[in-house]
Amino acid sequence: MVPHLVTALTGPINELEQRILESTPVIERWFRLEWMEHTPPFYSSVDVRNAGFKLAPVDTNLYPGGWNHLTPEMLPLAVQAAMAAIEKICPEAKNLLLVPENTRDTFYLANLAQLQRIFYMAGLNVRLGSLSNDIKAPTTIELPGGDKVVLEPLIRSKRRLGLKNFDPCTILLNNDLSAGVPGILEDLHEQYLLPPLHGGWGTRRKSHHFKAYEEVSKRFGKLLGMDHWLINPMFNQCGQVDFNEDAGMECLRSNTDALLGKIRRKYKEYGINEKPFVVVKADNGTGGMGILTVRDARDIDNLSAKTKARMAVGQAGQEVHEVIIQEGVLTNERINSAVAEPVVYMMDRYVVGGFYRVHADRGVDENLNAPGSSYVPLAFEQSAQLPQPGVKPGASVPNRFYMYGVIGRLAMLAASYELEATDPDAEVYE
Amino acid sequence: MVPHLVTALTGPINELEQRILESTPVIERWFRLEWMEHTPPFYSSVDVRNAGFKLAPVDTNLYPGGWNHLTPEMLPLAVQAAMAAIEKICPEAKNLLLVPENTRDTFYLANLAQLQRIFYMAGLNVRLGSLSNDIKAPTTIELPGGDKVVLEPLIRSKRRLGLKNFDPCTILLNNDLSAGVPGILEDLHEQYLLPPLHGGWGTRRKSHHFKAYEEVSKRFGKLLGMDHWLINPMFNQCGQVDFNEDAGMECLRSNTDALLGKIRRKYKEYGINEKPFVVVKADNGTGGMGILTVRDARDIDNLSAKTKARMAVGQAGQEVHEVIIQEGVLTNERINSAVAEPVVYMMDRYVVGGFYRVHADRGVDENLNAPGSSYVPLAFEQSAQLPQPGVKPGASVPNRFYMYGVIGRLAMLAASYELEATDPDAEVYE
Repeated sequence: MVPHLVTALTGPINELEQRILESTPVIERWFRLEWMEHTPPFYSSVDVRNAGFKLAPVDTNLYPGGWNHLTPEMLPLAVQAAMAAIEKICPEAKNLLLVPENTRDTFYLANLAQLQRIFYMAGLNVRLGSLSNDIKAPTTIELPGGDKVVLEPLIRSKRRLGLKNFDPCTILLNNDLSAGVPGILEDLHEQYLLPPLHGGWGTRRKSHHFKAYEEVSKRFGKLLGMDHWLINPMFNQCGQVDFNEDAGMECLRSNTDALLGKIRRKYKEYGINEKPFVVVKADNGTGGMGILTVRDARDIDNLSAKTKARMAVGQAGQEVHEVIIQEGVLTNERINSAVAEPVVYMMDRYVVGGFYRVHADRGVDENLNAPGSSYVPLAFEQSAQLPQPGVKPGASVPNRFYMYGVIGRLAMLAASYELEATDPDAEVYE
Repeated sequence: MVPHLVTALTGPINELEQRILESTPVIERWFRLEWMEHTPPFYSSVDVRNAGFKLAPVDTNLYPGGWNHLTPEMLPLAVQAAMAAIEKICPEAKNLLLVPENTRDTFYLANLAQLQRIFYMAGLNVRLGSLSNDIKAPTTIELPGGDKVVLEPLIRSKRRLGLKNFDPCTILLNNDLSAGVPGILEDLHEQYLLPPLHGGWGTRRKSHHFKAYEEVSKRFGKLLGMDHWLINPMFNQCGQVDFNEDAGMECLRSNTDALLGKIRRKYKEYGINEKPFVVVKADNGTGGMGILTVRDARDIDNLSAKTKARMAVGQAGQEVHEVIIQEGVLTNERINSAVAEPVVYMMDRYVVGGFYRVHADRGVDENLNAPGSSYVPLAFEQSAQLPQPGVKPGASVPNRFYMYGVIGRLAMLAASYELEATDPDAEVYE
């Protein structure tokens, strides 16, 4: 089952799908050349929104959870991609240390079990080293599906990180470091630490990512001869906002107003009969904390005390000062009346699968990855099939997924640019 | 549906399956290290025979046809592997020239259409250049499934091979060169020609391959702590046989006798209650021409004139002088009463799928890939799923396919050794 699009099966997105399918060899070669110059993130997931008239990434996760939502058919692709990734980084490796989030949520732990399975099949012994102080000895947790995971305490020596009797070549983070970089992960120069520490939300900024994505989408738009706005969410940013102190509100209001104006002009250009909106959120952090949907800049002046308090606190409790104002992209995919949002999963440079977040209680302009969101994962059907050139645009499930996979990879490429630009150890040639 | 094994679900093969599953990270790492030193063939397929007490490759094809027998679920794996292969060889490539066999058999042409689809999705424009003199202009052939292929005449310049308005970076042969290397393929030093010309049956010898495979299987046996005979078909060879002139028959008889004796001792060691047999065939060529099953060396002296005439002619009509005498491996897989033989497909270093040749009219000790064999292809089910550690040995379909994939890759590795050893351009360090 795949969500249907509310929007008619004509219009910009179906033209885009057509263009993308016809251009497959050109697109794949373009990616191939990009990956000669740039290093893909080890793994990633990208939230995509399909408005019918526009298709854009809204979040790129460098520490993807949710691998347990992929179907058994997708796993061999993930294993094959993991093999390719390992081979490049540390082919002689026997051991991989996976460092998870500090949570005992069984859905999250099922994600860890799945990652363990993938890397085991790719040829690595995988063990889980917890950053939590509560894990003082190997702790086995049984999962509802019959799987189990063992969390173990990390052991740090002067130069290396490992577990008792387990010295890994590579350390893979599945923890987005929202609370900052723990000392135990610093100054590890003998082991591969992936993603690099500056991929954590202590350093990362959404505005850096979407700046890089804008550049990528412009070049891709040129390659395919299309307006890059069709795949690019516009944004502005404000660097010194304090919701508690009402500071920086003028910046927020004027930037919101300017962005709404730009969206309005684009809607007019394409004859889109929707009300523009923007999404205001912390420039760092993920997971849908403190997100504000704004349709009129004047609303910024009338935020309730409750809303301000909510907006002031970011992930892991830090204060929010840097804010991104992003063009809102409707999701017009539906399962019956429930809103659905596709998430694309990638390992190394390869799309390995994806699923829909399906949420009955949320609106088309709301974030479906909000805390406590009770979304239902719906694995992409037939995503493990090749596109079908020649099928009517909008009518082929594999064709739609191929398009999502292209957009997901554009966002992944942007993340690669972003990580290069923010690398503290990068050599600068001037 | 997957063939059941006639043999009981106990015995050496189930122990082997168990051992292989438990050793997955060790095996995958071992392959990873091998591929650091050796180059996998661009693509390959391996015929495997499962006797219940023994599992061995019997033929390794470096120009695999039959890609059309893979299921839609397997294709994304093939595409991903093709991407990895292309990236290493010629990442900037736009064009791939595929050189097929000279046949208009629609099953074979469907194989070409499938290969075209795979490489198109991997990011290449693919066109078919025929070696046949009958193709003097682009010739479109419609296939029963709705696909079509266009065969075009090759155009050779002094340094390059291509088609009209089509200059490829890479030329991929799907023609095993049984009739020798055509001049049009020689002295191409500016383009990648894959597989290399010495992979054709003009140079290749089964005995070279199985010598290399024996070496590989010994090392693999040591890695897993098992007798390599369980996966290695023994063989002898005779270099100067002439069936028409009755020359070399003494060599044939004594080697057959010696090999039957060795098999008998192995059967005794393992308590196998079967009658040993050997298979006599041309040391070069494939496709099941002139194959002789022998259970008693004295039968060599009593070959009928008809049998001798059949044995004297190899593929593409050449005389047979070099002969391999190979340990016969029963196939004990059955669909109802029909004999089934698995074929494993690989692209670059990756197993991407496979199918069973199912043949109602043939015996357990006969070749199922004989000319005119009306085998039914049965795609591996659930091969696009990961193994299931912990399931009872012999009872899990994905586990059996994982084992077949390991054996297939061992044969592919042997082919890599073989091609290195026979490379006329290899630098020799003495």
